[in-house]
Amino acid sequence: MTPIESSMTLFLQIAIVLTAGRLVGGAARRFGQPQVVGEMIAGVLLGPSLFGLLAPAWQQAVFPAASMNVLFTVSQIGLAAYMFLVGIEFRTELLRSHARGAIVVSVAGMATPFALGAALAGTLVREGGWFDPATSSRVAALFLGAAMSITAFPMLARIIYERGLSGSALGTLCLAAGALDDASAWCVLAVVVASFRGDWWAAARPIGGALLYAAVVAIVVRPLAARIEATVRAKGDLPSSLFTAIMVALMLAAWYTDRIGIYAVFGAFLLGAAVPQGALASHLRNRLEPIVVTVLLPLFFAYSGLNTRLDLLDSRQAWIWTAILLAVAVVGKGAACGCAAIATGADRRTAFATGALMNARGLMELIALNIGLEQGVITRKLFSVMVVMAIVTTLMATPLFELGYGRWARSRGLLGGTP
Amino acid sequence: MTPIESSMTLFLQIAIVLTAGRLVGGAARRFGQPQVVGEMIAGVLLGPSLFGLLAPAWQQAVFPAASMNVLFTVSQIGLAAYMFLVGIEFRTELLRSHARGAIVVSVAGMATPFALGAALAGTLVREGGWFDPATSSRVAALFLGAAMSITAFPMLARIIYERGLSGSALGTLCLAAGALDDASAWCVLAVVVASFRGDWWAAARPIGGALLYAAVVAIVVRPLAARIEATVRAKGDLPSSLFTAIMVALMLAAWYTDRIGIYAVFGAFLLGAAVPQGALASHLRNRLEPIVVTVLLPLFFAYSGLNTRLDLLDSRQAWIWTAILLAVAVVGKGAACGCAAIATGADRRTAFATGALMNARGLMELIALNIGLEQGVITRKLFSVMVVMAIVTTLMATPLFELGYGRWARSRGLLGGTP
Repeated sequence: MTPIESSMTLFLQIAIVLTAGRLVGGAARRFGQPQVVGEMIAGVLLGPSLFGLLAPAWQQAVFPAASMNVLFTVSQIGLAAYMFLVGIEFRTELLRSHARGAIVVSVAGMATPFALGAALAGTLVREGGWFDPATSSRVAALFLGAAMSITAFPMLARIIYERGLSGSALGTLCLAAGALDDASAWCVLAVVVASFRGDWWAAARPIGGALLYAAVVAIVVRPLAARIEATVRAKGDLPSSLFTAIMVALMLAAWYTDRIGIYAVFGAFLLGAAVPQGALASHLRNRLEPIVVTVLLPLFFAYSGLNTRLDLLDSRQAWIWTAILLAVAVVGKGAACGCAAIATGADRRTAFATGALMNARGLMELIALNIGLEQGVITRKLFSVMVVMAIVTTLMATPLFELGYGRWARSRGLLGGTP
Repeated sequence: MTPIESSMTLFLQIAIVLTAGRLVGGAARRFGQPQVVGEMIAGVLLGPSLFGLLAPAWQQAVFPAASMNVLFTVSQIGLAAYMFLVGIEFRTELLRSHARGAIVVSVAGMATPFALGAALAGTLVREGGWFDPATSSRVAALFLGAAMSITAFPMLARIIYERGLSGSALGTLCLAAGALDDASAWCVLAVVVASFRGDWWAAARPIGGALLYAAVVAIVVRPLAARIEATVRAKGDLPSSLFTAIMVALMLAAWYTDRIGIYAVFGAFLLGAAVPQGALASHLRNRLEPIVVTVLLPLFFAYSGLNTRLDLLDSRQAWIWTAILLAVAVVGKGAACGCAAIATGADRRTAFATGALMNARGLMELIALNIGLEQGVITRKLFSVMVVMAIVTTLMATPLFELGYGRWARSRGLLGGTP
């Protein structure tokens, strides 16, 4: 592709993705789903599963294989900026009072699905056709365990934002537990890739790098952010040189966390969490939110959807295993998180809502699955089964949340957002 | 490149481009140059002419050839959004009262450099080494004529914005004449490419397509924009569904004008010019400006700079021709536009300022030169000579403007911006 062809393709793709996202998002809202689920489904529909089935030539013209790298890259900028905004909303002071709850929920939400997934992996390896023949039982168990315990962190963040839970105790608990789960899952995934390749440095790097990064953010970035907040308050504005500096920091954070293998999503979130609540946070929100949420973020959901191939689920056996893995995923993650919340003293409604939200796998799951597929750990069949699991758990999240918590809380004025 | 490698590369590139742009921009401001010239020079310094000379391995690691398409594509989104903002600032009602002046200045600024460039082309063809041997004298004349008459439309727009000229009579005159010149130059360039390839449909398409596009904007988009303005005023806000719709329109406009060959820059500008001054315009400005001007636009200037190779100017003959072409460019464009402004009744200061601003070739010239190089019309040597001409005419613009008009106007309170 020439540069001009590449940019023309992206112009058209953005136009189509935004239009489809709005149309499907409008339809999804009638079924009680948030806009973001509409954008995710729009992505799947624009991919090989519908648009590609009905009009393969047109689908290839609009989304040629050569353009996918560009679409991914642009969507990653949007995703990083979005996770930075989520981090800004994140109330670290609320977390302190919920730290015990968050850790318990997070550990339960990791350990249970991990153990159940690892146990199932043995059966799947024996049956054949799900994992690559070169994948050992140990690697298979680690991979399926990690894949089952993934939390849809950006999706969770978006649902919490759309439902008006940002800054609430429930929202903070879920975001904190989700962030811990997410970081741990990426570390486990790094171990999987390392043991598959026999390269242990590949496992030490993300874990050591993540700790180093967290230390730098806590020791260097937080005090700096507090000083910038003071400047912004004194000047009554965020000068463009400081805005540029913050954007440079965001790009470096995204680059570094991608490089060490825990992914930009996490680095951007942690950087945002270092920004204190106040004038700086509100300036950053006003400047970034419109383009990031409206234009760039739908591209990420679309990219992920475009890589999903539902046509590979073409046998009875595939669907039976889909049902089993789905049931295990819901019990292992949703039920375990709910029970953990009750164990730490949450009331039943809050515990139910926690389980419902943590259970969504969203499209982080797809990223993990794509890594497994690219590294040659799993087959395309297991990939597609897990994609269905990811979509169904995500679709379940909002209706379950509304049923068990949202309507009740809204009727008592405890929720700011509209349904 | 894998998708993750591609996005990591872009994260790092954005961080480096923004940092370099700020540093060089700060230095440039001390010499009376606008921030945008700093960003342009920063791009050249990050390319093969300095960074690539000092540390070729590092330069290749940060800006690998495989990443340039992505950088170009992202920068094009920023450029399209920026030209849309420029269009929004564009005061069409002021243009009406200056239409005669704009047309006269624009025709003088096209015809004179075109004629001079075309005349020089004959000598250059006879000397050899400047044009491809396959290039006929007629095509060479057309190409050099078009290349000499290019106006740095986005650069002009940025200087006008930075100097506080937006909405003034002088700013409007220059923008209108620049827009006309730009559109005509792209049409001539399309004719050049068409006659080089012997494909005349390639010439009819941009001219017919541009007329069709302008008609659709005038007949369909303008009334629609007026209705959206009424809605925004009634609601006191721009609903996100309408913002999405406007972004879709912008992407479609950019795609269409790229497709017909007059380039996205022009389509986005015209779309913006259809937005009435008012609440809608101010909402769009607030939402787009921060990311577009601070993050995305520097990428466009950097991309263009990265493709510049000053090391090819390695002979006395090359430098003599550089001086000749530069002198012809300044006389043909700057002096001609100034004289045309006087002929239409402008005072001497305004005429001087018009000539100084119209004379900047900026990086639109680089786009045109790249097309000539890619199509095999010119050699890399002529390419590099013309790049120097583009940079020098751009560097001249602001100091000349300040000398002849800026300081005088500012001391009388006629200019809003800071120097």
